[in-house]
Amino acid sequence: MSQIKSTAGAPIGIFDSGMGGLTVLAALRAALPGEDFIYLGDTARLPYGTKTPATVQRYALQATAALAARQVKAVVVACNTASGLALDEVAQHHAPLPVYGVVLPGASEAAAVADATGVLVLATESTVKGGAYQRALLAANGRLKIHAHACPLWVTLAETGSQSNALVDTILRHDIPTGHPRTVLLGCTHFPVFRRQLEEIFPATRFVDSASTTASWVAADLAQRRLLNQRDAGQVTFLATDGVERFRRVGGHFLGQEIRAVELVDL
Amino acid sequence: MSQIKSTAGAPIGIFDSGMGGLTVLAALRAALPGEDFIYLGDTARLPYGTKTPATVQRYALQATAALAARQVKAVVVACNTASGLALDEVAQHHAPLPVYGVVLPGASEAAAVADATGVLVLATESTVKGGAYQRALLAANGRLKIHAHACPLWVTLAETGSQSNALVDTILRHDIPTGHPRTVLLGCTHFPVFRRQLEEIFPATRFVDSASTTASWVAADLAQRRLLNQRDAGQVTFLATDGVERFRRVGGHFLGQEIRAVELVDL
Repeated sequence: MSQIKSTAGAPIGIFDSGMGGLTVLAALRAALPGEDFIYLGDTARLPYGTKTPATVQRYALQATAALAARQVKAVVVACNTASGLALDEVAQHHAPLPVYGVVLPGASEAAAVADATGVLVLATESTVKGGAYQRALLAANGRLKIHAHACPLWVTLAETGSQSNALVDTILRHDIPTGHPRTVLLGCTHFPVFRRQLEEIFPATRFVDSASTTASWVAADLAQRRLLNQRDAGQVTFLATDGVERFRRVGGHFLGQEIRAVELVDL
Repeated sequence: MSQIKSTAGAPIGIFDSGMGGLTVLAALRAALPGEDFIYLGDTARLPYGTKTPATVQRYALQATAALAARQVKAVVVACNTASGLALDEVAQHHAPLPVYGVVLPGASEAAAVADATGVLVLATESTVKGGAYQRALLAANGRLKIHAHACPLWVTLAETGSQSNALVDTILRHDIPTGHPRTVLLGCTHFPVFRRQLEEIFPATRFVDSASTTASWVAADLAQRRLLNQRDAGQVTFLATDGVERFRRVGGHFLGQEIRAVELVDL
């Protein structure tokens, strides 16, 4: 249990299995420019999406404990696999620290924009098997047609960051079957890195990701708790469990801006 | 330091980041049918090939410590990334336990069969960057033309084990450029799972992997140390750090026979 009362001046902690969560960080920074953030990527143990629920829960608790030790005022679990499999455990362990996931915001937006063709959820194998997106979509609209499909290669493709466009194109087409629903939910924080290419290949499809919706939810909830930072320009601290140089280099693509320094941490 | 003197009746330990090393286990069982084996797959933390040397060394020492605790008489590091980056550390830490890697056997075979077009090494990013294959090939033949190319998607492709042939075909073709040397060294224990498909796509190419050469080296060295088991039929114990059910199911493809039970261990 966290013994520390959150204060408005403290940073917001955000964690992901690797660099994918940087897409969520970018949305959070746009929504909350005055906040400080500590971003932790568990790059040594990525990907989470092929691991069992017990292992994902253990790793998520270790990651959030490292953020809690740095006196964050809230934690955003920016990894869909961990959000789907470990959010309750993390929230209970660190209560009363506010803990936010990315599954509910993404599902609520997809359910809101979906038409009669339903929603196709693209995610990691563990997220699809865990069923968190399917449950959240059904909770939002009990009559929604839901399809879910695992894309195990996409995370590796995104994290290596140097594949040819033709190869990426082939893999993206392979994992989105013809006749798919018109709304496709990118249920992994790595996947928005392919958004432009997806929109070119499937111009009639509406792609939804969790980043901006999650940022709105976090901003609204922190405002209600009177935990917003009123300063002018916040700072970001980057932590990773391995490969800090690669994180600096490839992470810039996810974040959309240069990353200057990454600190190596052991969980 | 290991305090236990190796005895001929003890099992041989073998470890890999996941299931790829099962191709080496299959060759070892064929060469040494009377031996017992303990196979450990660090499936919770796979892949190793995108991690830094320091992290690979730490994980390799933890894996070999778990095998040493089960009184193995020798350790085979059946992961190319760990063989290339951590073999000296493992051997020194557990001296005088015999420790074998897969890089030298594979490189020596490739150097022996290569023609004037040289050798193309296909491996993980860390193995290529670490340069162990390139050094071993040059040591075997200082005039050899050597090319090395990282194939980051192949491990994910092999470990998920359920992709369409057409997609695998596209990825294999993508990573082997036209005009490549006639000898291609599969420098990752996962890659022989694609061997039949590679030989169909590139019929004029000679593919070399480390499995059978490593098995011959281990058999010869254990015979010299008088550590061979003279029994009739050995047993295999399977350990994995995550996903034992997937290991049982997918691992059979690598091993070429059914796997009945896999024990979950924590490193």
